[in-house]
Amino acid sequence: MLDTAESQGARSPIACYLQSLHRRYAGLNEGAVADYIPELAKADPNWFGICIATRDGHVYEIGDTRQAFTIQSVSKALAYGLALEDRGESHVLSRIGVEPSGDAFNAISLKAGSGAPFNPMINAGAIATCGQVFAKDGRSRIDRILAYLSACAGRTLHIDQAVYRSESDTGHRNRAIGWMLRNFDIIGEEPTDILETYFQQCAISVTCRDLALMAATLANQGRNPQTLEQAIAPEYVDNILSVMATCGMYDFSGEWIYRVGLPAKSGVGGGIMAVLPGQLGIGIFSPPLDSQGNSARGIRACADLSRDLSLHLFGNQGTPPSPIRLSYDGGQVSSRRRRPVHVQAALRGSGHRIRLFELQGELHFSNIEPVMHEALKQAPYCQYLILNCRNVGAIDAVARRLLGELNETLSGIGVQLHLCHVDRLVHAGGKLPLDARQIHHDDDAALEHCENDLLARQLGPTWNEVPAVSLAETHLLNGLETDDLAWLEREMPKRVAQAGDYLMRAGEAGNCLYLMLSGTVEVRLPDPEGDVGKRIGVFVASMSFGEMALIDGSPRSADVVALTEAGYAEIDRNLFTRLDSERPQLKIRLLERLARQISENLRRTNSEVAAYKA
Amino acid sequence: MLDTAESQGARSPIACYLQSLHRRYAGLNEGAVADYIPELAKADPNWFGICIATRDGHVYEIGDTRQAFTIQSVSKALAYGLALEDRGESHVLSRIGVEPSGDAFNAISLKAGSGAPFNPMINAGAIATCGQVFAKDGRSRIDRILAYLSACAGRTLHIDQAVYRSESDTGHRNRAIGWMLRNFDIIGEEPTDILETYFQQCAISVTCRDLALMAATLANQGRNPQTLEQAIAPEYVDNILSVMATCGMYDFSGEWIYRVGLPAKSGVGGGIMAVLPGQLGIGIFSPPLDSQGNSARGIRACADLSRDLSLHLFGNQGTPPSPIRLSYDGGQVSSRRRRPVHVQAALRGSGHRIRLFELQGELHFSNIEPVMHEALKQAPYCQYLILNCRNVGAIDAVARRLLGELNETLSGIGVQLHLCHVDRLVHAGGKLPLDARQIHHDDDAALEHCENDLLARQLGPTWNEVPAVSLAETHLLNGLETDDLAWLEREMPKRVAQAGDYLMRAGEAGNCLYLMLSGTVEVRLPDPEGDVGKRIGVFVASMSFGEMALIDGSPRSADVVALTEAGYAEIDRNLFTRLDSERPQLKIRLLERLARQISENLRRTNSEVAAYKA
Repeated sequence: MLDTAESQGARSPIACYLQSLHRRYAGLNEGAVADYIPELAKADPNWFGICIATRDGHVYEIGDTRQAFTIQSVSKALAYGLALEDRGESHVLSRIGVEPSGDAFNAISLKAGSGAPFNPMINAGAIATCGQVFAKDGRSRIDRILAYLSACAGRTLHIDQAVYRSESDTGHRNRAIGWMLRNFDIIGEEPTDILETYFQQCAISVTCRDLALMAATLANQGRNPQTLEQAIAPEYVDNILSVMATCGMYDFSGEWIYRVGLPAKSGVGGGIMAVLPGQLGIGIFSPPLDSQGNSARGIRACADLSRDLSLHLFGNQGTPPSPIRLSYDGGQVSSRRRRPVHVQAALRGSGHRIRLFELQGELHFSNIEPVMHEALKQAPYCQYLILNCRNVGAIDAVARRLLGELNETLSGIGVQLHLCHVDRLVHAGGKLPLDARQIHHDDDAALEHCENDLLARQLGPTWNEVPAVSLAETHLLNGLETDDLAWLEREMPKRVAQAGDYLMRAGEAGNCLYLMLSGTVEVRLPDPEGDVGKRIGVFVASMSFGEMALIDGSPRSADVVALTEAGYAEIDRNLFTRLDSERPQLKIRLLERLARQISENLRRTNSEVAAYKA
Repeated sequence: MLDTAESQGARSPIACYLQSLHRRYAGLNEGAVADYIPELAKADPNWFGICIATRDGHVYEIGDTRQAFTIQSVSKALAYGLALEDRGESHVLSRIGVEPSGDAFNAISLKAGSGAPFNPMINAGAIATCGQVFAKDGRSRIDRILAYLSACAGRTLHIDQAVYRSESDTGHRNRAIGWMLRNFDIIGEEPTDILETYFQQCAISVTCRDLALMAATLANQGRNPQTLEQAIAPEYVDNILSVMATCGMYDFSGEWIYRVGLPAKSGVGGGIMAVLPGQLGIGIFSPPLDSQGNSARGIRACADLSRDLSLHLFGNQGTPPSPIRLSYDGGQVSSRRRRPVHVQAALRGSGHRIRLFELQGELHFSNIEPVMHEALKQAPYCQYLILNCRNVGAIDAVARRLLGELNETLSGIGVQLHLCHVDRLVHAGGKLPLDARQIHHDDDAALEHCENDLLARQLGPTWNEVPAVSLAETHLLNGLETDDLAWLEREMPKRVAQAGDYLMRAGEAGNCLYLMLSGTVEVRLPDPEGDVGKRIGVFVASMSFGEMALIDGSPRSADVVALTEAGYAEIDRNLFTRLDSERPQLKIRLLERLARQISENLRRTNSEVAAYKA
């Protein structure tokens, strides 16, 4: 909570709210500290901490959030995740059910017949869960459980040895449960090691802040939002949250979901861990327990948090913005590839056949569905559909598969699908179900690819062959008076650059305009790390560039590099100034043409801004 | 599903998937059609429909989705919503619990002592729920229930009278339950009318498509996604979904949430309604029932849908994109108000003191939290924070309150908070907790307000007083040769416009450039409905406009209207052409200056594009 403004004395309204909530219940005199072992009875009944950790890893805390206490039953939810990772869902389900039992936490509650515990949140189920965790790679069960919980909390946790010994010394009822589980073959070995593991697991020392971060890790699909470690395999997060939702608060579970609406788990140490999936985690700590074994202040504070901040799982949390952030066509925004005039004219008539969607969010079924729907709606009006994934955080297997199917469907009706900015999609695992030619580095590259393809259809396969031109054939000079052209032919130096030569470098003083006579050059933003910079334009024979520097003397904003052997002529500042006295009418014509070129660029850029603000 | 591309033969991949799912179970030979009344036994065991309706109102359907059948117990979930609307949560909770009973649907299952039914999804709870619904405004209980369910489905529903009579003729067990409820005063009147209401409610005739739309209405916070009617009060949607989640599938509920992860309700007519909150609704219909009374094909198809499309409630559905879509400062993007040169220079040095966040999504706690966090982080570096809400769909009471508190916090450290594009936020109900001066029509107005405030601090209170200027003092002509200026003084007509006069209109051929000598004019985009158009610029004395038309002869793109009495001089095309022969050096100077102005606009617009693509 110590960000820069707060260090200046400005407190987050969330911190203020938590303070008022803490005050509301700090004086509450309900419940009693657990005393079935002496170590727990030592807890100060006034301890009270509340902590929220968000999916971005922001932590808000008030009160005794750094006070150590033992995790107790809160550990059951997380250990269940490790058991699932070790054995797989169906194996675990065959031994431990997932139905609420309606009984107290320490009831033996085994199903008639199979002897399977009703669910992993009651002691019988939690002990059976311990038995599902492997000792492996030279690490004992408890070492692995401790490491797993530590990854969830984002720091190394330890066992409170005094509490562990105390739990073990008095754990006769749990030993009875262990032997019943052995009797039904739910546990395949003598339960001794499993029981000691269970006692140690319950005695892991945590803080309220740890519980909030564990909860936030569950909210964040198993990835700790501060360390970014994938602490819990994402495919089992829904299993853990499901049992927390239906069985996490014992026989208070139905009412808990109804009133509070947050999957949660409590422990007799006074801790409660509650999760708003996809959003945030809550940790609360206060030792006095109510008659159901839940922290009395914790239950009230959690219910108030849910009500005051509208955190109910089924409340209005879940309507994300449309996955299509922007939709525009290639007539509104064109690639940075500058085109000769006749090519530009061809594109002006057909650019709208390219449709571009800027996507956002994470792509799963509910987000890819509107994209497919809109794609099929636009399909009759376009030949190319570009999905810009720059703001897409991830893609799941379902969306990946549907994207491949959309590609086939579109291809069947003559529409090419293209993707760009897919780095995070590819990182997320798995190949994209598209051909490499359909995947582009950025939106500009994708747009240019589609423009080029469109131009080849419109202008024939040779559209892109740009013959060398004379000075008189360049766009800037075309149509000038013969004697003006002759004068320029005489006065303008002509040069040839080899592929790889720099014609200009960003930051240099600009003092000349270039007229391309042959070949191709590329405009690149300088890369701060010395790599090849981002391409922002291409010029071919007949086009000119560098005019802004002649007009306002500003330094070059980009590098220009020859891609092929490239012939060009220059008008430098001296020559441009000499025109004033030697050929004023020519100067006027050139200025008019340059101003018109800049105006055209401005109109194009204004259209681009309008598309982005649509 | 008949959008344009589909009518051309292209089928949505979702339609294809549903077809394969339908094929997978169409031949399944499990379960038996309900036969406790003859009317239900008439159902064709081969009927099988699957329908998905999204929060956008897109409907995907396959099979017998338009076949009528009776809603039966699916109605219990919705009628519970009406009871809550009529009586309020605490009254209803005092009579009907929300804990899973672990018993079959028709068990009498009343809590010891109070006699309250365990939950509203068993028959006892559903009959008690009927008793909570008022007959009022001349409408009977069943009329109100029918209207309520019709609004959820988005079409007028009717009662299947044959099924109703059959239910009523054989409903002895339910009558027993009714009298038990009367005995415990859960029902305050003789149960006869309530029971008939209940029989009629169960006999409402629906289709699989209706169930999908009812489910989508629940997914969409109670608003039917096609009719956009608020069918269910949004504050009770979480209650309905909670009881569906914990009690909707009888004693299969724990496993249902674990495996399928969708709050759901089934009926003996063969229907299942399942909800992915915030995202979509599913309707499935197939009459043969399994031993638990759920549609056999329905259970399998729903489980497959959840697995194949990753629809589990606690799966990776929930990480929305960051609520801050873009963040940039007033140095990167400036208001469209064009400034005299010395004012522009002042802003260049201080524009970064204005910070602008473009927000997106719906503002609730989890989305406003990162905004507050980032605001407090930026606060030490800025004096103004503008929240652009153009892409914000709604704001809840919590975010509204926190916004007010953020405003106070920022104000305490000298940062002004401003909002723009708040129409949808205000529509959503309730005032925004900010002063009217902090709320602006659009981002441009907000930016200009902050720029003006910043300029007043920098340049003193009189910064905005623009004295009338002579032609020689205008930015375009300032510093020209004396005899050029004298020539222009002589040749340029000077005019005065009155407040409200149009200097130009969009679409007109442009043939002159204007030099402002006094007063203020505003540039407006023409409004298609004849209203005052969107302001896109303001010009004051010393500035010029209309130069693009002189350069490239394009028609005017906007209206220009005098806001005050405004003096100006014109250079029209004739005069501009005459300069070529009469004063070529002056023409050269003017063209250079015009080209420089256009270049500056281009640079500013490029910077704006870069901010939007950041």
